[in-house]
Amino acid sequence: MKPVNIGICGLGTVGSGTFNVLQRNCTEICARAGHDIRVTHVGARRDNPACDLNGVVVERDVMAVARAPEVDVIVELIGGCDIAKDLVMLAIENGKHVVTANKALIALHGNEIFAAAQAKSVSVHFEAAVAGGIPIIKAIREGLAANKIEWLAGIINGTGNFIMTEMRDKGRAFDDVLKEAQELGYAEADPTFDVEGIDACHKLVILASLAFGIPLQFEKAYTEGISDIAPADVKYAEELGYRIKHLGIARRTDAGIELRVHPTLIPAKRLIANVDGVMNAVLVSGDAVGPTLYYGAGAGAEPTASSVVADIVDVARSMDVVNDEQRVPALAFHPGQVDVDDVLPIDQVHTAYYMRMSAMDEPGVVSKVAQILSDAGVNIEAMIQKEPAEGVKQVDLIILTNVVVESALQTAVKSIETLSAITGTVHSIRVESLG
Amino acid sequence: MKPVNIGICGLGTVGSGTFNVLQRNCTEICARAGHDIRVTHVGARRDNPACDLNGVVVERDVMAVARAPEVDVIVELIGGCDIAKDLVMLAIENGKHVVTANKALIALHGNEIFAAAQAKSVSVHFEAAVAGGIPIIKAIREGLAANKIEWLAGIINGTGNFIMTEMRDKGRAFDDVLKEAQELGYAEADPTFDVEGIDACHKLVILASLAFGIPLQFEKAYTEGISDIAPADVKYAEELGYRIKHLGIARRTDAGIELRVHPTLIPAKRLIANVDGVMNAVLVSGDAVGPTLYYGAGAGAEPTASSVVADIVDVARSMDVVNDEQRVPALAFHPGQVDVDDVLPIDQVHTAYYMRMSAMDEPGVVSKVAQILSDAGVNIEAMIQKEPAEGVKQVDLIILTNVVVESALQTAVKSIETLSAITGTVHSIRVESLG
Repeated sequence: MKPVNIGICGLGTVGSGTFNVLQRNCTEICARAGHDIRVTHVGARRDNPACDLNGVVVERDVMAVARAPEVDVIVELIGGCDIAKDLVMLAIENGKHVVTANKALIALHGNEIFAAAQAKSVSVHFEAAVAGGIPIIKAIREGLAANKIEWLAGIINGTGNFIMTEMRDKGRAFDDVLKEAQELGYAEADPTFDVEGIDACHKLVILASLAFGIPLQFEKAYTEGISDIAPADVKYAEELGYRIKHLGIARRTDAGIELRVHPTLIPAKRLIANVDGVMNAVLVSGDAVGPTLYYGAGAGAEPTASSVVADIVDVARSMDVVNDEQRVPALAFHPGQVDVDDVLPIDQVHTAYYMRMSAMDEPGVVSKVAQILSDAGVNIEAMIQKEPAEGVKQVDLIILTNVVVESALQTAVKSIETLSAITGTVHSIRVESLG
Repeated sequence: MKPVNIGICGLGTVGSGTFNVLQRNCTEICARAGHDIRVTHVGARRDNPACDLNGVVVERDVMAVARAPEVDVIVELIGGCDIAKDLVMLAIENGKHVVTANKALIALHGNEIFAAAQAKSVSVHFEAAVAGGIPIIKAIREGLAANKIEWLAGIINGTGNFIMTEMRDKGRAFDDVLKEAQELGYAEADPTFDVEGIDACHKLVILASLAFGIPLQFEKAYTEGISDIAPADVKYAEELGYRIKHLGIARRTDAGIELRVHPTLIPAKRLIANVDGVMNAVLVSGDAVGPTLYYGAGAGAEPTASSVVADIVDVARSMDVVNDEQRVPALAFHPGQVDVDDVLPIDQVHTAYYMRMSAMDEPGVVSKVAQILSDAGVNIEAMIQKEPAEGVKQVDLIILTNVVVESALQTAVKSIETLSAITGTVHSIRVESLG
């Protein structure tokens, strides 16, 4: 067996996890790969006491690892788009294969990186960039290769799912759960990336590219966070037979590709509605296979390492391949072979809606709201209006609509908000059946 | 792009599905594969009106397809172990790659087939043999390549899961649902293969081999069907917070490999407990990744075709590979590289148990049963005993035990059955936490 020399750059949580999994499961991994896979180099600003670096060349400058002639595969586990991008481009320039767990790097610079890799006939793998330990990229890119992928929907941010789960299970408020998530280490001190959906959007953009054969287009995706979800919404959704999840959704329609991250009501009986806590899951529907679901840990040292090492094994197998057609294309389709569909602006997307508004408890309010919706072409599928508590003048009015174009719904919302009997803003959340 | 010529043998449900998916999604499939994949030959006793065979060489003798020099890949979709085995062996002998959906063939003759393929440097792929459209073989063999797989548990027979789901949802009896499943075409006229767990066991044996690097050993697996499950068991399980599923379970323990198919109580909150109807799901736990789950359609023309075609794409990519180390090994590990663990006889397996017995409503019965269990080293974790209906002398006594070795439980069961206050047999069902 020809040995494959690995250079791990970045020795934080995922880097040390990868190092240790490669050591601990060396026998199994090499017996699967048919190659002796060994970490010969590590690039890290400082050692990590969790790793026994005996016998490994340690470089403080990661670029030195990308230049080392003995190294076959550079494993980029630094994160961010600065040093990481320079490192990956240098590694490719030096004819090395690359494995990375960096979703932002792939979502924002993937088109450029893959073009460079193609020119140098090396592979860039990134299974760990989406949904941690779940082999979702392999599933879409290879496992479902027979299909026209119709849509996919994923819980692809563990922090957000932990918050939504706690809000539902314990009736807690968003801010309260976020604080706990930060204490538990699930959320960063600045939680924007997670709760505003940016992290999920990076991952969604990658999945959509693999599914539909389109370029990576982060800038065209729509992103909406979960910080405006109130405990009342969670409760009313439950009453209507739904759960609220923060989903990344990509769908191919005749009008274009939908690419959107937002809180979503989904039927409580769907398997993905029951994915709780920090776990991730992706639902993918193909024209031949129908709906399939992939579930597992979306983060953490060893789950992420599991995907990094799977990529290393794939690289080891295809290392000596000289013909690009023998490799799995980075974005699932060989370049230039698939039509590019446009990404739809969010106001042209069709979905059903949940609406919550605060109405004066007086005659005729429901009829006025219903009239506005009807004028905008929006049908009411279900409604909840409870008797007000004694002495209270305002009641919550909850409406589920049929599937409409977003612009129509927004027009109706603006009109409803002008009614004198409606106080404050109308809260709306998209609804998907995922059937 | 070099064309890849496919010969489909067998043009029944899956054969025609495969033919049609390859035609309909030709653009996507070829753009992913980097090769022009085309069906040049079909071997079938008769034409199938669902397929437009224009321009395809049609042979009534499938062996002629395996001999045709133009054909690169033989797709075996005949089923059974007679003609199918001869065909596969002949194809290998003639240096052709093989794709099959035949679980019985792989489970019973896989060791011989893979050895022959290895000798001729061709690949044999079989993704569709387990769990239909779910890319579970790829997930275990490649996606989880970093892991020591600890255990797996699967709902891998749709007929059985349909029956268990109907029994729970509607309180129906086994025989009643089986009859409906036969009318719906979910179950065969002779349902033995499905309801007695033989079909599931074929699939389990394949999964265990991939997970642990052990040879295929169908003859050593334990199989128990669902025909003895009573509506009362379904109801009591529910009351205890469990659901009954017909699972295939493989686990690596220090004492050996567990390989068993049987009805199983699992906590109702587990995702896999909520997989209903004819759908399949496999839960796989690795030491690095933790638990992961894969869900989708386990049968049907196009879901199965989805996996067959994914295999064809994999074969197309590795067709010109001359070095075996560049191929994914059929059973996940390169031959001769992993220790062979023994398969544990069922009486040495450790699980918890659910027990249901019919007891006379008289003093001291519970104490006698408890004493027998205690003497056998079995602890009671939970118990249900309801007040008898007026005029009724017998009550159901339901017990959940701790985890014990099966032989101890069976000794206790025999003793309990000798008690004069216990009528008939003691029904026991294994319990797994799948945590």
